[in-house]
Amino acid sequence: MLLQLSTWSEVETYLSQSQGIILPIGSTEQHGPTGLIGTDAICAEVISKGVGESVGALVGPTINVGMALHHTGFPGTISLRPSTMIQVIRDYIVCLTRSGFTKFFFINGHGGNIATLKAAFSETYAHLADLNIANGGLVKCKVGNWFMCSSVYKLAKELYGDGEGSHATPSEVALTQYVYPEAIKVAPLSEDVASGYPIYGAANFRYRYPDGRMGSNPALATPEHGKQFYELALKELSNSYLQFVNSD
Amino acid sequence: MLLQLSTWSEVETYLSQSQGIILPIGSTEQHGPTGLIGTDAICAEVISKGVGESVGALVGPTINVGMALHHTGFPGTISLRPSTMIQVIRDYIVCLTRSGFTKFFFINGHGGNIATLKAAFSETYAHLADLNIANGGLVKCKVGNWFMCSSVYKLAKELYGDGEGSHATPSEVALTQYVYPEAIKVAPLSEDVASGYPIYGAANFRYRYPDGRMGSNPALATPEHGKQFYELALKELSNSYLQFVNSD
Amino acid sequence: MLLQLSTWSEVETYLSQSQGIILPIGSTEQHGPTGLIGTDAICAEVISKGVGESVGALVGPTINVGMALHHTGFPGTISLRPSTMIQVIRDYIVCLTRSGFTKFFFINGHGGNIATLKAAFSETYAHLADLNIANGGLVKCKVGNWFMCSSVYKLAKELYGDGEGSHATPSEVALTQYVYPEAIKVAPLSEDVASGYPIYGAANFRYRYPDGRMGSNPALATPEHGKQFYELALKELSNSYLQFVNSD
Amino acid sequence: MLLQLSTWSEVETYLSQSQGIILPIGSTEQHGPTGLIGTDAICAEVISKGVGESVGALVGPTINVGMALHHTGFPGTISLRPSTMIQVIRDYIVCLTRSGFTKFFFINGHGGNIATLKAAFSETYAHLADLNIANGGLVKCKVGNWFMCSSVYKLAKELYGDGEGSHATPSEVALTQYVYPEAIKVAPLSEDVASGYPIYGAANFRYRYPDGRMGSNPALATPEHGKQFYELALKELSNSYLQFVNSD
Amino acid sequence: MLLQLSTWSEVETYLSQSQGIILPIGSTEQHGPTGLIGTDAICAEVISKGVGESVGALVGPTINVGMALHHTGFPGTISLRPSTMIQVIRDYIVCLTRSGFTKFFFINGHGGNIATLKAAFSETYAHLADLNIANGGLVKCKVGNWFMCSSVYKLAKELYGDGEGSHATPSEVALTQYVYPEAIKVAPLSEDVASGYPIYGAANFRYRYPDGRMGSNPALATPEHGKQFYELALKELSNSYLQFVNSD
Amino acid sequence: MLLQLSTWSEVETYLSQSQGIILPIGSTEQHGPTGLIGTDAICAEVISKGVGESVGALVGPTINVGMALHHTGFPGTISLRPSTMIQVIRDYIVCLTRSGFTKFFFINGHGGNIATLKAAFSETYAHLADLNIANGGLVKCKVGNWFMCSSVYKLAKELYGDGEGSHATPSEVALTQYVYPEAIKVAPLSEDVASGYPIYGAANFRYRYPDGRMGSNPALATPEHGKQFYELALKELSNSYLQFVNSD
Repeated sequence: MLLQLSTWSEVETYLSQSQGIILPIGSTEQHGPTGLIGTDAICAEVISKGVGESVGALVGPTINVGMALHHTGFPGTISLRPSTMIQVIRDYIVCLTRSGFTKFFFINGHGGNIATLKAAFSETYAHLADLNIANGGLVKCKVGNWFMCSSVYKLAKELYGDGEGSHATPSEVALTQYVYPEAIKVAPLSEDVASGYPIYGAANFRYRYPDGRMGSNPALATPEHGKQFYELALKELSNSYLQFVNSD
Repeated sequence: MLLQLSTWSEVETYLSQSQGIILPIGSTEQHGPTGLIGTDAICAEVISKGVGESVGALVGPTINVGMALHHTGFPGTISLRPSTMIQVIRDYIVCLTRSGFTKFFFINGHGGNIATLKAAFSETYAHLADLNIANGGLVKCKVGNWFMCSSVYKLAKELYGDGEGSHATPSEVALTQYVYPEAIKVAPLSEDVASGYPIYGAANFRYRYPDGRMGSNPALATPEHGKQFYELALKELSNSYLQFVNSD
Repeated sequence: MLLQLSTWSEVETYLSQSQGIILPIGSTEQHGPTGLIGTDAICAEVISKGVGESVGALVGPTINVGMALHHTGFPGTISLRPSTMIQVIRDYIVCLTRSGFTKFFFINGHGGNIATLKAAFSETYAHLADLNIANGGLVKCKVGNWFMCSSVYKLAKELYGDGEGSHATPSEVALTQYVYPEAIKVAPLSEDVASGYPIYGAANFRYRYPDGRMGSNPALATPEHGKQFYELALKELSNSYLQFVNSD
Repeated sequence: MLLQLSTWSEVETYLSQSQGIILPIGSTEQHGPTGLIGTDAICAEVISKGVGESVGALVGPTINVGMALHHTGFPGTISLRPSTMIQVIRDYIVCLTRSGFTKFFFINGHGGNIATLKAAFSETYAHLADLNIANGGLVKCKVGNWFMCSSVYKLAKELYGDGEGSHATPSEVALTQYVYPEAIKVAPLSEDVASGYPIYGAANFRYRYPDGRMGSNPALATPEHGKQFYELALKELSNSYLQFVNSD
Repeated sequence: MLLQLSTWSEVETYLSQSQGIILPIGSTEQHGPTGLIGTDAICAEVISKGVGESVGALVGPTINVGMALHHTGFPGTISLRPSTMIQVIRDYIVCLTRSGFTKFFFINGHGGNIATLKAAFSETYAHLADLNIANGGLVKCKVGNWFMCSSVYKLAKELYGDGEGSHATPSEVALTQYVYPEAIKVAPLSEDVASGYPIYGAANFRYRYPDGRMGSNPALATPEHGKQFYELALKELSNSYLQFVNSD
Repeated sequence: MLLQLSTWSEVETYLSQSQGIILPIGSTEQHGPTGLIGTDAICAEVISKGVGESVGALVGPTINVGMALHHTGFPGTISLRPSTMIQVIRDYIVCLTRSGFTKFFFINGHGGNIATLKAAFSETYAHLADLNIANGGLVKCKVGNWFMCSSVYKLAKELYGDGEGSHATPSEVALTQYVYPEAIKVAPLSEDVASGYPIYGAANFRYRYPDGRMGSNPALATPEHGKQFYELALKELSNSYLQFVNSD
């Protein structure tokens, strides 16, 4: 059930049965010479929809832009500053808590979002305690990172070994190929790919990782792999959601 | 050309020819008993994609949540506070200006966004002047409200007369029916529909407009009407974009 | 009744009869070669005092500086950033709501304030709902733009035709001449006056509108015209105030 | 020379000779049973205009609302929060620095503004250093508190002794009586007047100082005294301004 | 009793007897050629510990970095912006108020902190009133500046006369020598020492006060003097704390 | 070399040889019935001093209060909100970057700080890019968590097995016992200790973890263990610092 395709009275009915909601969060950032800029949002969205369908949960609109400041040296990247993103997440949760939701399950497509999401949750819990909104004290937030699901991780290692890398990975590229086969990109990829440098500011990132990849070989990706990743993530995050929403 | 389905080097190539980008902005808010919560985002997105295709412009990811605080008395509504939204818009524009973009065309699906968007543009121009980013002084932003296109407005009046109302209108509902025929909702609509009350806070809004509609009769909407609205808006906003991006 | 010339116990007495207050808001910005920098504040203040007297309403201190970032390329202009102005308006309303006021009628002299004022009202309604201040839920804000009164607009068109323009207009200049006849300025005004360019950042504005006027011929203004504008605005906004304050 | 009654080209001419500006800052707050709510703004404004005339300096629009949170337990008081006021002062100074001003002389009517003004100056100097605005490094701000002028203080002690108190003082009331003889208020004043309690929050302040006075007997004030205070402050602050603006 | 060396249940026990807490606040800033960068924090901390022991009060962790923007032209200086420091102080007080504390006694080692501390207290009182935290209305904050104790001031004048100056003073240097005899610094000090210039931005400060001292001769300091200053401040601030915490 | 015990000219000399600085960051939060509230700050500080001595690095003042909102249900806990902490870290780094530092090594004693620190680094890199401070582009920040050193972790598992838990751990308690043997606390510890619950808001945390421990048995701690942990962390973080500061 998609929030965007529901009416407010359907949401009211839903709330009488469940207070859980899935919020897909991605990023709009470079993903190397062949990866789509929307990769993280696309992956989070498709998996969220799948999980929502599988467990009967409401799925909110995708947060397409996240914390990707270190990628802003590449054209097309858009990022919130962490201080902005904290306010955004707070606004989402406060509004939905007023509606009656108390369990917020963020399905996340971008490692760079995790720290700021956690900071935002802490800020929001404290803010809700200040406000004394009805049920504010019951609010719980959880991040489910599809790319960190153990089954996903295991398959990626099997299929790609070291070529999985840590950004613009074949696993995420494969998933976007499965979702958008019409947008599979081909571009020359140097065999040598930078890896192992810590992440600092945007200029340094581009200097260290000149084509945007971090140790990955996205040429290994296939749409069929993408389907496999999709199914694994779907299963694992569905379980995770159910456990979360059913815990007291 | 969709930013989310492009690579950073495709964006680099695009920038050598154009510095314009279309940013769809909607809202996630109640639209009466039969209107979709995502109506404004859906409309902005589909028209943006159409315009982008028609004029060869890059289309960014949809901003799904806007300024809808007055609707937060209805379950499922999510809103940014204006002060948050100003920071969000600033972050988008600053990032994209660093990429090389200077012409930002927001295709907007929600009247409630307009004031905050304008405030955000003013804040951002001044911020860019402070920063002295290359080309920061060339940045120009424009809002294109599809529902205020003169041809759209005229057709809505012809088809619905006073039944068009001003929120949860048959014209916007029709457009979502055209895009998502599988999500056409049916619900009893009282003949009496509130209208004419000014908009204040969320509780007052719900008190004044108990089913969420503002003077509208969305039962008049049909997917075929939606197609007509889509085509009119597409044409008018395509012209508007071209004029904007080609102006010095 | 002027707040600045009242004691707190007079305000207490007033509050037992009315919860309405008029807040004049202007701007401190260039108004072309002959217009006063304080034009918008002067006009808002004088009309507010007149309305206050005519309807027996309390009039707060004038907000002399508003949102005029686009005029800051001209010396003497002072502007709040929109994000600052939102906090200012919020602080005013929260304090006065604690006092017992619930109806805030802003008499505005500057078009550039409108968007940020609206954003500020939305932000403040939501903030008051968070705080649960007594009567916070009753708070209502309204902007009355004197220059958009239909009678004012009609007279300006009659007197000046296209020479009214849209900034540094003869109508607002006339009103300041009526209030401050000792400060009537004379300066050469080129016949050619820029008009029709959209408003972006400050540098662009000065480039497009080199003497600060937007399509106007303020040389047509006379103090007698000013008196007429004053009386028309007074009448129209007095009615508007009464309707607002007497609505439930 | 009043900024509000000048044109931008007059300001441009002024700037070729001086980079100094006087900014009156007051407060909108209870001043006991007989003191005007606008007392601090009225005093700051009239003295600023006098000083401006006497030394040929430009005088900006009065900042009518300052930091008076501790008075908000009394109806009619309006206050900025300190964090808001810091942004307001920063916005004023940044705009005027862009115009070419570098010496900012705040004539202040309210003790409660001093701490926040100082904090705002520090914040602004650092912000200007970040921005590298032309002449930003030359910016200097100074507060001139009329009520702390030694000659004013001496006269107040002579005329009123302990009855001067520290809020709603006869000296400031006298000055407003001189400026607005038509607004002289009469109300019963208890002989016992609270004094000596430290200032904490608004509720505590009202509890400690139930009629708003702090140890003062404003019944001693006369318009003639007000004239004397005016002249003393005018002389002392004129000297202070000249010394400030002429220092390198 | 030091908060840092206590357990939460010891704090709980303490709160059943007292709601007062001492918070040392210093600065991390240049103190001339021989003064320690931590001078203000060291002094505040040692005196706080002494006062805490003498009166049986809980002493919180030292706030090592304060408002020292004007010193940031010298290497090693760290400063909060005033707007940041207001949030920090607010966060401290809100947390401790939730614990049950209501009397906050800041022992301060840096004149530059005073204005921002006062602004922060005002902001916090108002914020607590908004939140309606239990006992929020009882919160009271007080600054005790050790260097402004009358006995300290008198001794400094006796020992050093004009050589006391106003920054990098022999009295504060003496106190750090008493605390850290192993860190007594020797460096050539010019006989001529700048004094009397007002404080503006950081670059101006370094230009005016090239070695960081303001009219002081810290070569006069001895550890024995430091002991005397310590004992005087201890006695005076202990009395001040008791008076504060025992007032209703 | 401690910043607090250095003069600005000593810092200047240091900067001619190294641009690295160690910043200890802890927390002020409950650590169970026997753990010190200052545990995390104490550990970070003592290890930082040791590392600084061992590698000849400058050590800044300890950040005593971090992100511990989830512990604020226990008396004595103080926390910054994440949005405040981001500004604090930004202010520290910007000031020190102006001094000439470019390598910031945070030795951290609290897991709850990590997310916000990472968010703060991202925000600061982007802010520095905006400002174009000299060397701003060279700034690099790194967190060294002493409790996550592999040798520390290994020893803790050997000594305590599952009794190490994840908060108020015997390893951190041991380290504080080594540093402050005079502050070793004894209190009854129930054998049953809560563990495994996710961390949400403060009220939920106290409900789930009623005595503050998370799965730990701090009764196993001894000062001798503390010495071992100290030495292991010292060695591992010294290497980590050197690698960081010597990387280009």
